[in-house]
Amino acid sequence: MIEKLAIIGVGLIGGSVAMALREEGKVKEVVGCGRGEANLQKAQQLGVIDHYTHDVAQAVQGADMVLLAVPLGAIRDTFEKMKGQLADHAVVTDAGSVKGSVVRDAEAVFQGVPDFLVPGHPIAGTERSGVEAAFAELYRNRRVILTPLAETRADAVQRVEQMWLDCGAEVSSMSVDHHDEVLAATSHLPHMLAYSLVDSLSRLKENDEIFRFAAGGFRDFTRIASSNPVMWRDICIANQQALGGMLTRFADELHDLAALLEQGDADGLLSLFESAKQARDRYVDGVKHPE
Amino acid sequence: MIEKLAIIGVGLIGGSVAMALREEGKVKEVVGCGRGEANLQKAQQLGVIDHYTHDVAQAVQGADMVLLAVPLGAIRDTFEKMKGQLADHAVVTDAGSVKGSVVRDAEAVFQGVPDFLVPGHPIAGTERSGVEAAFAELYRNRRVILTPLAETRADAVQRVEQMWLDCGAEVSSMSVDHHDEVLAATSHLPHMLAYSLVDSLSRLKENDEIFRFAAGGFRDFTRIASSNPVMWRDICIANQQALGGMLTRFADELHDLAALLEQGDADGLLSLFESAKQARDRYVDGVKHPE
Repeated sequence: MIEKLAIIGVGLIGGSVAMALREEGKVKEVVGCGRGEANLQKAQQLGVIDHYTHDVAQAVQGADMVLLAVPLGAIRDTFEKMKGQLADHAVVTDAGSVKGSVVRDAEAVFQGVPDFLVPGHPIAGTERSGVEAAFAELYRNRRVILTPLAETRADAVQRVEQMWLDCGAEVSSMSVDHHDEVLAATSHLPHMLAYSLVDSLSRLKENDEIFRFAAGGFRDFTRIASSNPVMWRDICIANQQALGGMLTRFADELHDLAALLEQGDADGLLSLFESAKQARDRYVDGVKHPE
Repeated sequence: MIEKLAIIGVGLIGGSVAMALREEGKVKEVVGCGRGEANLQKAQQLGVIDHYTHDVAQAVQGADMVLLAVPLGAIRDTFEKMKGQLADHAVVTDAGSVKGSVVRDAEAVFQGVPDFLVPGHPIAGTERSGVEAAFAELYRNRRVILTPLAETRADAVQRVEQMWLDCGAEVSSMSVDHHDEVLAATSHLPHMLAYSLVDSLSRLKENDEIFRFAAGGFRDFTRIASSNPVMWRDICIANQQALGGMLTRFADELHDLAALLEQGDADGLLSLFESAKQARDRYVDGVKHPE
């Protein structure tokens, strides 16, 4: 049971945690913290939080669990504001899409990774944002990755893991670097490709016509290019190294494909498409998501 | 009214045309032609076709409308087999995803583009294939592009257009080259990117784990990598030039993005993502498809 949960950033991600824990009776008091007055008022009206403040230092007073659900670009500033204000028994976790940058921010602010910090990443979300988009089931059967460090206290990891289990999620652990590689491959790179494709096509003279003749496959393929640009700018900057590596790897692959095409190498093309289809079908079968 | 419709290739595309025209009472007799005995038997049992043959020359005897719904790689051979066998009033159309190659095949076989040929492309389909996947509503509110040539008889164009209108589709016309450019941009290039991405990731050592942590966005983004590899090999070979140009354009764009990333150019990244999101949202609003 969490006695007092402080949520810094009460949007889709933070709001849904509060709603899930309330529904399960796993939290006594929730204090919200953020900059937007209207959003926090709404969160209170909706019963997502009990009360709120704009002051991070005040929000974390006496909290045994602090969840940072702010954009990656705001993590360091939030650490600065909570420094020296945390209760002795406080555990701090976050929900950022990159973990290396969160650890670097913590090291810079706290002079070393504090033992109460459990970096985390719930792999869930929708295209919508803000507390009105929050719902208690967001994390049900979704994966949450925790990336505890050598310095992290075992009881802190255990408490954060329990919080996510109470939200209905499956919890895995891996190293910070490994997390950032895996997410660069499966999330950050695809977003870059979708943004690049749409941007590239929108620069064509006849782009309106081009988009008009696009079919359903294009709509699916480019859906993620409708994601929040500020969030993705922050993710790129935060995961610059791993994402850069994946981009290079992909550019090489694309170069090989262009060569097959130029040479009219039908067998080479077929072999590439078959191996990709096999991998994709295996992945889809593996996770047993409905198509 | 079509008196006798010959469908060469009775799968999802050809079968759905027959079903739609039957439902609307716009065809009297449908003869199917293909290589697979079991598929043709099934088509007859389902009432999609009245009878069938494995012989193209026989199938087109007396037909006033001939629809080629075979893979692009089989178009030329099909033209060869129907040469000299067509009725005087016959109109021939096709459903291939590339139009330049169909025209080149026709020129090679008929020594010039025949006036009865109306190259066409219904922008519709599902991941499924075969006549059992066919359904009468496949083309309803979908776009069909016709690419008539200077040589094409006006009445031939009019009859093919009417056939697609009777299937519930919207019909547009454009030049062969323009069609192949537009489709390279909105369909062929995205398929290449999806295949390349999945293939690239599947070569990573820990690829099973990578796919396990992929979220819904990845599933949407890579759905088209589950498409038929043989069909896509044929499309690549057939649309080599336009697709090669789009691939080069995209590779340049990706190179620019990689440079922004390497330089940590937050403003440049944000600007690219914002312009892509605007274009994508405009396109989605424009076509008013449910997301």
